[in-house]
Amino acid sequence: MNSVKVGLLGLGVVGGGTWKVLVQNAEEIARRAGRKIEVVAVAVRNVEKARALVGDQVYVTQDGLEIVRRPDIDIVVELVGGETVAREWVMEAIVQGKHVVTANKALLAKHGNEIFDAAHKKGTMVAFEAAVAGGIPIVKAIREGLTANRIQWLAGIINGTTNYILSEMRLKGLSFNEALADAQRLGYAEADPTFDIEGVDAAHKLSLLASLAFGIPVQFSKVHTEGITTLAKEDIAHAERLSYRIKLLGITRRTSQGIELRVHPTLIPIERLLASVEGAMNAVQVQGDIVGPTLYYGQGAGEMPTASAVVADLVDVTRLQFADPGHQVPHLAFQPGSMADTPVLDMADVVSSYYLRMRVDDRPGVLAEVARILANHEISIGSMFQEPHGPADADIIFLSHEAREGNIDLALEEIQNLPFVRSNVIRLRVESLL
Amino acid sequence: MNSVKVGLLGLGVVGGGTWKVLVQNAEEIARRAGRKIEVVAVAVRNVEKARALVGDQVYVTQDGLEIVRRPDIDIVVELVGGETVAREWVMEAIVQGKHVVTANKALLAKHGNEIFDAAHKKGTMVAFEAAVAGGIPIVKAIREGLTANRIQWLAGIINGTTNYILSEMRLKGLSFNEALADAQRLGYAEADPTFDIEGVDAAHKLSLLASLAFGIPVQFSKVHTEGITTLAKEDIAHAERLSYRIKLLGITRRTSQGIELRVHPTLIPIERLLASVEGAMNAVQVQGDIVGPTLYYGQGAGEMPTASAVVADLVDVTRLQFADPGHQVPHLAFQPGSMADTPVLDMADVVSSYYLRMRVDDRPGVLAEVARILANHEISIGSMFQEPHGPADADIIFLSHEAREGNIDLALEEIQNLPFVRSNVIRLRVESLL
Repeated sequence: MNSVKVGLLGLGVVGGGTWKVLVQNAEEIARRAGRKIEVVAVAVRNVEKARALVGDQVYVTQDGLEIVRRPDIDIVVELVGGETVAREWVMEAIVQGKHVVTANKALLAKHGNEIFDAAHKKGTMVAFEAAVAGGIPIVKAIREGLTANRIQWLAGIINGTTNYILSEMRLKGLSFNEALADAQRLGYAEADPTFDIEGVDAAHKLSLLASLAFGIPVQFSKVHTEGITTLAKEDIAHAERLSYRIKLLGITRRTSQGIELRVHPTLIPIERLLASVEGAMNAVQVQGDIVGPTLYYGQGAGEMPTASAVVADLVDVTRLQFADPGHQVPHLAFQPGSMADTPVLDMADVVSSYYLRMRVDDRPGVLAEVARILANHEISIGSMFQEPHGPADADIIFLSHEAREGNIDLALEEIQNLPFVRSNVIRLRVESLL
Repeated sequence: MNSVKVGLLGLGVVGGGTWKVLVQNAEEIARRAGRKIEVVAVAVRNVEKARALVGDQVYVTQDGLEIVRRPDIDIVVELVGGETVAREWVMEAIVQGKHVVTANKALLAKHGNEIFDAAHKKGTMVAFEAAVAGGIPIVKAIREGLTANRIQWLAGIINGTTNYILSEMRLKGLSFNEALADAQRLGYAEADPTFDIEGVDAAHKLSLLASLAFGIPVQFSKVHTEGITTLAKEDIAHAERLSYRIKLLGITRRTSQGIELRVHPTLIPIERLLASVEGAMNAVQVQGDIVGPTLYYGQGAGEMPTASAVVADLVDVTRLQFADPGHQVPHLAFQPGSMADTPVLDMADVVSSYYLRMRVDDRPGVLAEVARILANHEISIGSMFQEPHGPADADIIFLSHEAREGNIDLALEEIQNLPFVRSNVIRLRVESLL
């Protein structure tokens, strides 16, 4: 049988990894795919450097458009990243009737609806396993493994950098800045770590997961996104004392009023599997109405884990490339005509439990006043403890029962204005994951 | 588009669950599959009882052959269990050119090669996600999600009954028989639990997983199978003291001399995710050369989790049913012409670490003599402790470094014959899962 011909756009970390995997495991991959998968052309900025890796048999150019327009190419693999050139080349590949494999979560989070729509009209596949949670086949699990279920919610550790930082903060008692510096030194965080530590990368991925889970359009702009930059090591320690661990979770949930879509540091009970996911590892828990809880764990980033997902998509597309479009697996799990317009829930309407910490004057009546304000906003307290801080101050830590976020907002505004409250009130969300 | 017509063989626990899921989530499933999936005929022993569940619109018969021969049926779902009628009906369904979905691990473990071969020749699909680890999409993950990888090994908790019993033994300090009685009372173990507690059920599943992972024929008869019936609560406690937990694992590993294929109680380090899988839950860790470790967790049995997998297969087959056979996903992950004849490794050639416990006279020279025999067989000791037992006896517990199982066999035979050894020597295997 003829080999499948691939045009590779980008030969950086993931592109280079993909090349290596296709060479190293060529035989194993062909045994599975039923034919050889062959990179015939590569687009890169540095042509000389690329030639040194891929040799003389592969055509190397700087012009991605030249590659996506080559009639002999079956599948275009986009690994240049970003949203400008990548978008142009992917859209042109679709126009040319090519199947596309991409690891570009930013591109899909922002332009996915346009891209999937164009691909649907043209009858080509756009596969993106590598865009979410690296080597974990989570896209496939949701899109194909759990199709019997109405997904109720999912929650995931989907950014390895922040999970590494949080693990280090907890295990070594470091501050955020100290742990970040360590992570940068060891290569777990980039020189400009903004997208990771501010939760943007996780929000990109979450918007894709929500779409797969609920059959809704990709809605990155509606994700409530908080990072971990303001997280204090005290809160990590207090959480442990309460038998919780803090993880940066991407959470999406179907409620009767809409879809929750949020990324933020979250207290989860220590005995949950997600709480044991340490270092740069990723894991996603998916709750289906039929199957109950399922969880998927693995390396969420890096050259080889991401390449593993890219190549799995290549095998998938190879297996399916001659199926008529009506019998390909839909890009976003649901048939294009069956997407729902369920609204995304306003953050104020999200119901959660809360961890609250405030520094106050250590004198009678303080607790009573705070408790009164919470009660006025229908926030009831599950547990509470107080820690002295210096001669005249104390930290009060509350764990609330479930409350509307809007009510918490109002209560915190009032509490913040009390004369005896001496710091910003810290508010973290708590999820039971049950 | 026309609905897909399904003939359902068996309407017991899983069959009934499958029916319920197809009714309850009909809309969600059609949104994903692109068409309605409709059960048009059911074969059951008790026709009246079935009619009460499925109503008048569905044809009910006792004769499965009648159903698999109906020209209007696209997919046959076999949920009768066993290996006699089930085998006959599945083989006839294939002869009739039907696609088959089954949850029958015993059937596939023993007759899978014959069934898959017939299906390949006829160009039909045989899907069996529900046969391994219930609702966890582990078949799909290995067959399609990790295709970039040479799988190095996998290890799984793939029997919920035994995992429940082991959790109870540990958490409540129960003996095996006490925990089994509890499990039977609560419905986690059947009246005749032999297949579960002797490891046979896990061996069925492992033989399928090994085939998917390595592209080898299904070889149930070659699985080294030990159950948990002789496991003492003392060993569970000793293991904890050494920071290990005992799980019944199915393990298969690629070595330079052959494929390891074994089910037995195993000590694993407490900090591994698999060690935290409690109760009736299942989990499988898969190690790929490219992706590193991945893990899949969920409910491994029961009406709804198993039905979740059956229906996922129905959606898969529906999506692919008009693809030409060359472009369907291969039953066993690898193309039929690409299966390997890698031998299954003899158990004596397996290399592992070992936990050894022996009751001995508590007097000088005993330890020296045992240590001498171990050393003679090239078995070196990682750690060791001794516990007094009564006035004149003691239990000695060893944790060995890696050794050949054949050497352990010889050493234990000698040790067992020492005059001061007063009990059977207990031997459990230890896996680092790294």
